Amino acid sequence: RLLSPSHESGSNGDDLTDLTAGKSIYMVSDGTGWTAEHSVNAALGQFDYCLVDRACPVNTHLFSGIDDVERLMEIVKQAAKEGALLVYTLADHSMAETARQACELWGVTSTDILGPITEAIASHLGVSPSGLPRWAPGRKNSLNEEYFRRIEAIEFTIKQDDGALPENLLKADIVLTGVSRTGKTPLSIYLSQKGYKVANVPIVMNVGLPRSLFEVDPEKVFALTINPVVLQTIRRARAKSLGFDDEIRSNYSEMDYVKEELEFASKIFLRNPIWPVIEVTGKAIEETAAVVLRLYHDRKNRCSMPRISKRY
Amino acid sequence: RLLSPSHESGSNGDDLTDLTAGKSIYMVSDGTGWTAEHSVNAALGQFDYCLVDRACPVNTHLFSGIDDVERLMEIVKQAAKEGALLVYTLADHSMAETARQACELWGVTSTDILGPITEAIASHLGVSPSGLPRWAPGRKNSLNEEYFRRIEAIEFTIKQDDGALPENLLKADIVLTGVSRTGKTPLSIYLSQKGYKVANVPIVMNVGLPRSLFEVDPEKVFALTINPVVLQTIRRARAKSLGFDDEIRSNYSEMDYVKEELEFASKIFLRNPIWPVIEVTGKAIEETAAVVLRLYHDRKNRCSMPRISKRY
Ligand SMILES: Nc1ncnc2c1ncn2[C@@H]1O[C@H](COP(=O)(O)O)[C@@H](O)[C@H]1O
Ligand SMILES: Nc1ncnc2c1ncn2[C@@H]1O[C@H](COP(=O)(O)O)[C@@H](O)[C@H]1O
Ligand SMILES: [Mg+2]
Ligand SMILES: [Mg+2]
Repeated sequence: RLLSPSHESGSNGDDLTDLTAGKSIYMVSDGTGWTAEHSVNAALGQFDYCLVDRACPVNTHLFSGIDDVERLMEIVKQAAKEGALLVYTLADHSMAETARQACELWGVTSTDILGPITEAIASHLGVSPSGLPRWAPGRKNSLNEEYFRRIEAIEFTIKQDDGALPENLLKADIVLTGVSRTGKTPLSIYLSQKGYKVANVPIVMNVGLPRSLFEVDPEKVFALTINPVVLQTIRRARAKSLGFDDEIRSNYSEMDYVKEELEFASKIFLRNPIWPVIEVTGKAIEETAAVVLRLYHDRKNRCSMPRISKRY
Repeated sequence: RLLSPSHESGSNGDDLTDLTAGKSIYMVSDGTGWTAEHSVNAALGQFDYCLVDRACPVNTHLFSGIDDVERLMEIVKQAAKEGALLVYTLADHSMAETARQACELWGVTSTDILGPITEAIASHLGVSPSGLPRWAPGRKNSLNEEYFRRIEAIEFTIKQDDGALPENLLKADIVLTGVSRTGKTPLSIYLSQKGYKVANVPIVMNVGLPRSLFEVDPEKVFALTINPVVLQTIRRARAKSLGFDDEIRSNYSEMDYVKEELEFASKIFLRNPIWPVIEVTGKAIEETAAVVLRLYHDRKNRCSMPRISKRY
């Protein structure tokens, strides 16, 4: 097996010290590659148990913007050398077919991620796929209403962060509240990228909440809670990274204080029973986001099965 | 065909006025549903040409957290009634098999999004998938290093927004620069969610840039540029949504000013030839992000084929 001498790993670019230790997955797209990456990540979740302890380490390699046969062939050959699995999303039918055949020829196992779902949709709609990749000249411009709405939601949400402008809670689609380090900020940002204007209001022991929190439609408020032991762990990591001195740290991340503050928050939540209380312990940001959005849409859509619907 | 009386559309919850006009796609996941949604969105890109003019309108319906057979069966039956296509990601093998068989029984076309890629990875690694969905009790906790790094990147990036703390440019992984409305903020946020600390420095005609921009490693600076006509359109929409009065608007979005400001920026870029100049015209945020990250990783990784590598 041939490996190129130096790669980098992780999104922050650390060097891979021992690439030969892992099996490779090549992801090839004529577009951004994010679809292939997302699918591979979800599938890798099924192997968490052995990725974690390094019994089966995996290296993924993302090749984006691959829209000519020459580069495609180079990648397939390199995949063959490295003994990699190759997954691809190629809109142009002949490119996808070339990938499949080249992989067969070079003995590379391959999986088409876009093809099957595109074919299913094509026969469902009774029309043919365009075969045009993201960056093809004939493609539709992205400056539509949706684009502007998303940008506005992101900008609104950044400005609102940490209760900065409480009078604007009224303009938000979703209002998050909870004690420090329940993940309000990253959750807000995640939701804003899906087009929701989000405001968040921190709860601090013995500090009053902005009156506007009780003036907004309570159906758009979501309360976050977390296990105290986990919260302490997160706060300790936070205090360390911020370089808090010992005294502040003890107040912020000591168990008595953490528990008292969570109880303080619980009492507020009990007095506002319409706010759903969402447990964030052990959840990734996108998981909490899914829970929030399911509840949000259910409330607007009481008569049908819980779902999030969109029109295209 | 039976349709439930009222749904909502779009992430901001507008009502669908005429659902019968569209074909339905049901997306079912035992997790968040984001993987199914992402794949369906990519595939729908192949039908842009007919979605746009409403020749083949589509309604998607996302059902997340479906981990019991009863709810699964309800959804399949509803899909049959609506004549929907059903795509699913179900980690538990018997749930996936149930979905497949129930769809066959009820005459619903179905596509398994997770199965094929999971099987390919399983045989590549020589180990079996756990069959445990995201929220299964036995699952690995998400509080790992990666989690903390991402949160930190998001918080760093929000604080940095719009050149707020120029002395911190040194700490950023990536620095973006360009005139107003080239999409620096949403791009920064997108990249931060992938774990990169991003700072952005706005270019305003005849306003000096912070000295630190020229002190940071020029290899981490990315310049954004855009077609003046498109920029004017975006700025007009912006001025309207901010409620600028006519005088400010003319200065900000009039063609002479727009062109002059872009030329002012171009001159700065010419004096800093190491900065790649990225054309954002007609690109979605995630598309520009893909270009930035490809260049970013290529620079760190000169000797191998352009790729973004990660270790799991
Ligand atoms: N808006 C779109 N128009 C056309 N093709 C798209 C669109 N979005 C994604 N695709 C295709 O879907 C696949 C996955 O896209 P990506 O996530 O950018 O790698 C690629 O083959 C793209 O060319
Ligand atoms: N970290 C993970 N552990 C186990 N399964 C996962 C993980 N992430 C995603 N999945 C599975 O991958 C599919 C897609 O996930 P989602 O995008 O949350 O709908 C679902 O069947 C999930 O159960
Ligand atoms: Mg892709
Ligand atoms: Mg899914």
